[in-house]
Amino acid sequence: MKLKNIPAHLIPSRVAKNAHFDIETINSILDEAIVCTISYAADHQPFSIPTAFVRYEDKIYIHGSVGSHFMRELEKGMSVCITITLMDAIVVAKSAFSHSVNYRSVVLFGKAERIEDAKEKIKVFEWLTNKFVPGSWDYLRPVTPKEVQKTTVLAFALDQASAKIRTGMPNDEEQDKPLPIWSGIIPLETKKLGPVADELSDNIPLPPHLR
Amino acid sequence: MKLKNIPAHLIPSRVAKNAHFDIETINSILDEAIVCTISYAADHQPFSIPTAFVRYEDKIYIHGSVGSHFMRELEKGMSVCITITLMDAIVVAKSAFSHSVNYRSVVLFGKAERIEDAKEKIKVFEWLTNKFVPGSWDYLRPVTPKEVQKTTVLAFALDQASAKIRTGMPNDEEQDKPLPIWSGIIPLETKKLGPVADELSDNIPLPPHLR
Repeated sequence: MKLKNIPAHLIPSRVAKNAHFDIETINSILDEAIVCTISYAADHQPFSIPTAFVRYEDKIYIHGSVGSHFMRELEKGMSVCITITLMDAIVVAKSAFSHSVNYRSVVLFGKAERIEDAKEKIKVFEWLTNKFVPGSWDYLRPVTPKEVQKTTVLAFALDQASAKIRTGMPNDEEQDKPLPIWSGIIPLETKKLGPVADELSDNIPLPPHLR
Repeated sequence: MKLKNIPAHLIPSRVAKNAHFDIETINSILDEAIVCTISYAADHQPFSIPTAFVRYEDKIYIHGSVGSHFMRELEKGMSVCITITLMDAIVVAKSAFSHSVNYRSVVLFGKAERIEDAKEKIKVFEWLTNKFVPGSWDYLRPVTPKEVQKTTVLAFALDQASAKIRTGMPNDEEQDKPLPIWSGIIPLETKKLGPVADELSDNIPLPPHLR
């Protein structure tokens, strides 16, 4: 992972061991997360929007309506900052000061590349759909040319991405360690629950990829 | 909730029924979320960082090291955009095009107000600590004046905040509704698991607020 032009204070975490630049670490965070927050700026005012995304090879992709003001701003090639954050645990120390959070996050800088080719856009829809519901793409009603036209797809290269990760137990101050105060972590878990059918699907069998 | 100077395209969602401005809705999202993403811009380049926060009355508060470049930029009074996002479900439609996500998000615009008063800073630490581990503040080793000095606390007013929410089932196109394709939602749940002690706390009883 080559990094260039990223402000130094944003790369190495203040806790240097928390910073990661290897692509495997970055990809694993991107592939687990559902949503990213994407920001651009106009006249020193940042605008941020959370949106679904998918990674494929060395890019991430987002999509939106061609009528969306946000998408139209991004496709002008404005500089963006995209953050992805997974929360893993609350870190409970013996002092409030040493409390922390275990997290895995990615920050990436770049500019949007608009995907024009219809076949490439459909590939992105397939990756997105199969990310959210693995194995579902071939089961769904196929996309139409009109749907492709109505959707903007933007790609962002990962060449200016870095990860920050905190794992493990609290780092209490030396003088606090002997205190008879409980310390440890409270793990956080995000999981998918069982599918809930809508009324149109009461009598439709649940397909194998959703079981 | 009075709104002013927020770009129109960012207030009402493209799906107008998704936009909410009442303070109860906004507060409920802020109080459930652990992390916000805060962005500022310098020369058209946005910089974003995820960070823990707490709401108290009509402000949210963040904290960080006085040595943090990001905190020092924010305390200059730069314009920020803060987003908070909770993911509730994957919305599985009969077409890929109608797939969606159920979410609750808040976006707020504003500028940092630096909290200088030590007692007020300690109050913010108490709110933060009790948000992450309810009932824990009085159990912990008390904060020291040095810890207060080493920590910057910033407040952001909620007077330019709005919420966007999507709930419920897929909105399939009329012509897709009769298709024998399963549609519904896959709920997402984030929960705290049981506490895990570190080695310093093997023989320390779990306090009642963590049971």
